[in-house]
Amino acid sequence: MNLFRPNIQRLEGYVPGEQPQEDGWVKLNTNENPYPPSPRVREAILAAASGRLNVYPDPLGTEFRRRAARLLELDPDWILPANGSDESLTILMRTFVDPGETIAFPYPSYILYETLADIQGARHERLRLNEDWSWNFEAAVPVIERAKIVFVPNPNSPSGNLWPENELCRLLPPHGLLVLDQAYIDFADPSADVKLLQADGGDQIVVTRTLSKSYSLAGIRFGFAVAHPDLIAGMRKVKDSYNCDTLSLAAACAALDDQEWMHENVRRIQATRSRLTEALRARGFTVPDSRANFVWATRPEADHERIYEELKRRRILVRYMPFPEAGPQGDRTVDGLRITVGTDEQIDRFLQALDQVL
Amino acid sequence: MNLFRPNIQRLEGYVPGEQPQEDGWVKLNTNENPYPPSPRVREAILAAASGRLNVYPDPLGTEFRRRAARLLELDPDWILPANGSDESLTILMRTFVDPGETIAFPYPSYILYETLADIQGARHERLRLNEDWSWNFEAAVPVIERAKIVFVPNPNSPSGNLWPENELCRLLPPHGLLVLDQAYIDFADPSADVKLLQADGGDQIVVTRTLSKSYSLAGIRFGFAVAHPDLIAGMRKVKDSYNCDTLSLAAACAALDDQEWMHENVRRIQATRSRLTEALRARGFTVPDSRANFVWATRPEADHERIYEELKRRRILVRYMPFPEAGPQGDRTVDGLRITVGTDEQIDRFLQALDQVL
Repeated sequence: MNLFRPNIQRLEGYVPGEQPQEDGWVKLNTNENPYPPSPRVREAILAAASGRLNVYPDPLGTEFRRRAARLLELDPDWILPANGSDESLTILMRTFVDPGETIAFPYPSYILYETLADIQGARHERLRLNEDWSWNFEAAVPVIERAKIVFVPNPNSPSGNLWPENELCRLLPPHGLLVLDQAYIDFADPSADVKLLQADGGDQIVVTRTLSKSYSLAGIRFGFAVAHPDLIAGMRKVKDSYNCDTLSLAAACAALDDQEWMHENVRRIQATRSRLTEALRARGFTVPDSRANFVWATRPEADHERIYEELKRRRILVRYMPFPEAGPQGDRTVDGLRITVGTDEQIDRFLQALDQVL
Repeated sequence: MNLFRPNIQRLEGYVPGEQPQEDGWVKLNTNENPYPPSPRVREAILAAASGRLNVYPDPLGTEFRRRAARLLELDPDWILPANGSDESLTILMRTFVDPGETIAFPYPSYILYETLADIQGARHERLRLNEDWSWNFEAAVPVIERAKIVFVPNPNSPSGNLWPENELCRLLPPHGLLVLDQAYIDFADPSADVKLLQADGGDQIVVTRTLSKSYSLAGIRFGFAVAHPDLIAGMRKVKDSYNCDTLSLAAACAALDDQEWMHENVRRIQATRSRLTEALRARGFTVPDSRANFVWATRPEADHERIYEELKRRRILVRYMPFPEAGPQGDRTVDGLRITVGTDEQIDRFLQALDQVL
C-alpha cells in the first residue's frame, strides 16, 4: 500500500554535498569555514552542558534574539531563530505558500528552494540568469508578478556574485515576499546591515542568515530570519515550539559576542579567495569575481565531472554541479566546479592535485 | 497586505507550557525529568565541542541509528533521528497527509496534533474518550476508516494511562498509518520493544520516541521515529538535510549507551509517582493509575484553575488543562491538573503548598 502524498512519492529528495566521516580529506565541497569557531563558543557549550539539560530550552531564544537585534540595530521581535537556515526556508514555505501557489528563484542557484516547493505542493519557476549571472528582467517580471515568494541567495551560489540592492528591489513580487538568503553575506561585508527591511516595501522582505558559514558553526545548526515583527509572529506559529536547543542557543550567543573573531576569519578567507581566483584563471578557468567563501570555475571544453572525479581519487572533494536547461533560453547545460575557499594549505594541495589532473 | 496562508492566519498557535528562565521555581508543568542525564552525556558533549564544529553533522545520524537499532533489535534503516519528537510528528504530517485529508487522535490528549494538522491544511477529528479514558470504538471506527493518520500517545497525556497493544491494533486505519507516540513509554516499561512493527499490519505503524523525558535531555532536542524502512526512506526526503546537530547526536549516543542510568531514574520516578498518586487520592482527588512521569488529578466541585493559580503564586508550576467539548458526547469540559513527577523533595513542597491552597 502506498501511503505517501503523491508529491513526496515523486520527489527525488535533495542530495546534500558528500560528508565523509573519516579524516584525511581536503574538503572543499560544502562551503564550510576551514577555521574553528571562537574559543568563547566552546566555553559557552561547556557551561551549558554542565547546566540543566533535563529542562526545555527557551522556546523564543530570548538571549539570542537580543544579541542579533543589537547587532542589526532592530528590536528583538524582528528576529526568529531556527535550526539552521534550511529550517528558516522550510518555515517560510509553510507559513506563506499554499499548495498550488508559485515560488520563483534564480537559476542556476540553490536547488533546495525547488525541493521545498515540491514538498509543500507548490509550483516553482526558474528565473534563468544571463551567462554573466545578471538578471534577465524582461523574462523575470511576468513570473514575479504571480509569485508568492521570490527566493534570492545573495551572494548567489554557485557563482559567488553579489547583486546590488537596487536590482533586488525590482524582484519584489507585488503580492508576495522577497526572501534574501544571505547565508554568505559576511564574506562580502561582515558588517552588512538590513536597512532595506525598514525602507519602502521592506515589510515584504525577509532576510535569512546562518551561523554555519562565517561563524564556523555548521555543526550546531543555527540560522535566523529577520523581518517585520508581523511576519515573524506568523512564522513563529509554524515553527516547532523548541526548534533550537540549549547548547546551540548558548553557542550562537557566544559566537555573536565575538565579532572580531568572525571578521578576522572573513579577512583570511577573502585573501585566500583572491589567490585561488587568480591561480584558477592562470590555469585557463573562467572564474566570476566571488563575494562568498567559494568560487565557481569553468573551462571551455573541459570535462568538469572528470576533473571532480580525478580530484576525489586524490582525496580532494570539490562540488561538481550540472544545471540542465540553463542559460537565458533554457537550452543548454551549465556545469562547472564549485570550490570552497579553504585554508591556504588546503588550496595549495588542491592546486597541486589540479595540475596533475589537467 | 496579508500574505499569510489563510490557515496560518486563522491559527492561534500551539502554546507550550510556561518556561520561566529564572531559578526558584518548583517546575512540575512540562513533564521534564528532575534528574540530570548520564554523566557520559556531558563527557560526549565536551568531546564534540572540542571537535570540528565548523563542518556539517552526519546528515543520516549513522552512529545514533546504529545504537537505537541495536537497542530495539532492528536494522538501522528502521530509525529516523529528529530534532525532538515534535519534529518527527511534523515530518510525518508533511510526508503522508495531503491538505484536505483527515487525521484523528484521542481526546483529551496531546493538542499539538491538531495544530500540526491546521498548519498542513488537513482536517482533524477527535476520538472522544470515555470518562475512564477507555476508547469508544463504536464512535471511533467510522472516523478511523477515513483517516490518513491516527495519532495515539501511549501512555496518554494528560491521563497517564497505557492502552494495551491489542486495543491499539483496532485503531489502525485501513488506508493510513497508526502513529504511536511513545514519548513516555519508558516510564511504563524502560525495556519496551517495538515488535508490533514486524507483526501483521506493522508496515502501517510508526513509533515515535524521545530522549527528552526518560533520558533527561529535553534541552538537547532529540527524538526518533521507528518504522519499516520504506516509510523511513520517504520521511527522509522531507526532513531538512542536517536536522540533528553534532552536539545533540553525540549526546544522544552517550545517553543510549547508559541504559542503567535511565532505568535507575525511571525506578525513582515510578516510586515517587506511587507516593504522589496516593497523597493526592488521600486529599480527595481522583487520579487514574499513571504509567508516565506525570499524574492527572481532578476533584469533584474543585476550581482547578484557582488551585493552579494559587500554587503558581507560591512558585510551584503545575499544568492546568481544560478540554472543552470532551466526554463521549462532546458535551462537557474536562479539566484538571497535570502534575509532573518531580523529585521527592519537590513533591513534598508541592503537597505542602497544596494543603495551604485547598
